[in-house]
Amino acid sequence: MASDPDERDFIQSIERGFAVLLAFDEERVNPNLAELAAATGLSRPAVRRILLTLQRLGYVRASGSRWSLTPRVLSIGQHYSASHAMIEVAHPHLLDLSVKTGESASLAELDGRDAVYVARVPVRRIMSINVSIGTRIPAFATSMGRVLLAWAPDAVVDEIIAAGLPALTRHTVTDADAFRGVLRQVRSDGWSIVAEELEIGLLSVSAPVRDRSGEVVAALASSTSVGRSSVEAIRRDVVPLLLDAAKRISADLGYRSSAQADRAVTPP
Amino acid sequence: MASDPDERDFIQSIERGFAVLLAFDEERVNPNLAELAAATGLSRPAVRRILLTLQRLGYVRASGSRWSLTPRVLSIGQHYSASHAMIEVAHPHLLDLSVKTGESASLAELDGRDAVYVARVPVRRIMSINVSIGTRIPAFATSMGRVLLAWAPDAVVDEIIAAGLPALTRHTVTDADAFRGVLRQVRSDGWSIVAEELEIGLLSVSAPVRDRSGEVVAALASSTSVGRSSVEAIRRDVVPLLLDAAKRISADLGYRSSAQADRAVTPP
Repeated sequence: MASDPDERDFIQSIERGFAVLLAFDEERVNPNLAELAAATGLSRPAVRRILLTLQRLGYVRASGSRWSLTPRVLSIGQHYSASHAMIEVAHPHLLDLSVKTGESASLAELDGRDAVYVARVPVRRIMSINVSIGTRIPAFATSMGRVLLAWAPDAVVDEIIAAGLPALTRHTVTDADAFRGVLRQVRSDGWSIVAEELEIGLLSVSAPVRDRSGEVVAALASSTSVGRSSVEAIRRDVVPLLLDAAKRISADLGYRSSAQADRAVTPP
Repeated sequence: MASDPDERDFIQSIERGFAVLLAFDEERVNPNLAELAAATGLSRPAVRRILLTLQRLGYVRASGSRWSLTPRVLSIGQHYSASHAMIEVAHPHLLDLSVKTGESASLAELDGRDAVYVARVPVRRIMSINVSIGTRIPAFATSMGRVLLAWAPDAVVDEIIAAGLPALTRHTVTDADAFRGVLRQVRSDGWSIVAEELEIGLLSVSAPVRDRSGEVVAALASSTSVGRSSVEAIRRDVVPLLLDAAKRISADLGYRSSAQADRAVTPP
């Protein structure tokens, strides 16, 4: 598509509306107009009009000169969860996996170059991994992302490699050929363990979840830290539980294991 | 504020952008242009421009003539969860409560006249209650809503009553005076049990969660059904576990129990 009609169809107000909503974060829980203008690069009058609009729609509220999100913003994600039966189906299995392993259990989907948490059962620990639904992590350096990439079309993997494989820690696999080799290994093993490639101290293991058509639609993960476990312990104790849980979620989604299981399935 | 400047500041494109996003739901997981136009009441060219904009922002994707949400829509709610530490703090306690009771555990906040689920640990059952984060239920007929209303400013309760108390089942309290009496009782008991007022067969019990200032900021609930439990069994077995969990969440939020506990605290 030429860029002209594309530009003509692009509605800048919508982009700006989301930009203001997303400017509310851990660092700006109750921002004022000036802080939101600085965060979005928009003028104060523009931010003010957007806030008044979002307020009337019920997504933000004012308290003096400070603004905050309302729980109505959760509606948008709720529509995602409600329209993706997998999330409701998977939750009890995440809970069960979390109870059996004593570690947090998560489910992620691929979106662009990121793995996005779509469901999660955390465990209570001072040093637990601080992520919530919707959190995005770079796919290439995480067990969830590698599982999603191992069964993804070649074009997706090529794009990830083209975007670069930065060294997030000294353990991150950054070489393109080595990375392709890792994905082949994940595909042959049926699971992925990643140790300290995203963050020092972090260990995680993931397995694929398949839908009725056999397509890998999500990655199921169990995460821990080097202080509590090791790659060897994960391989011995967690992998069987993880594979079992992933198999049960896939079965609930209508997947029937067969010789097709390891064949690549191209998304529609 | 006069309605004129209000109208001048309202950006209709933003409202329409959200209308299209929210038109994706359980009934319309993969809608086409005509279905989205019908659902939103917008013209097809208007919907098309909005979809192309949302696609460029990464919130929707096309597959042939069908559209679907991407996990990027979860970012918006993630910003809510990340900026509300309560949700992360509460989750392990929900998990613990769910394991001890064998029932789902939920946390809700008040938004307008609805209680909105902000965190939840479901249990696996054929007849489990099908709600997800962001789901909205009428506050007046639910235990979570009654807990939130029992400690809310009078104006909030007045507005709920003014909007009407429809009989959602034959058990729903619909009389304004009786309803005010129920809220006084909740306040005196420190918890609320609601039996089959929202839906026949549904039983739930809730207790308040307080923040550092003593304000009731959320309701913690345990839900079950008449086939599995009874009001008497809930009062005897679940209320102590629920109060304990609510107390632990409040303590984690910095609340120190004192004589102030039952005094009304007016939000800022």
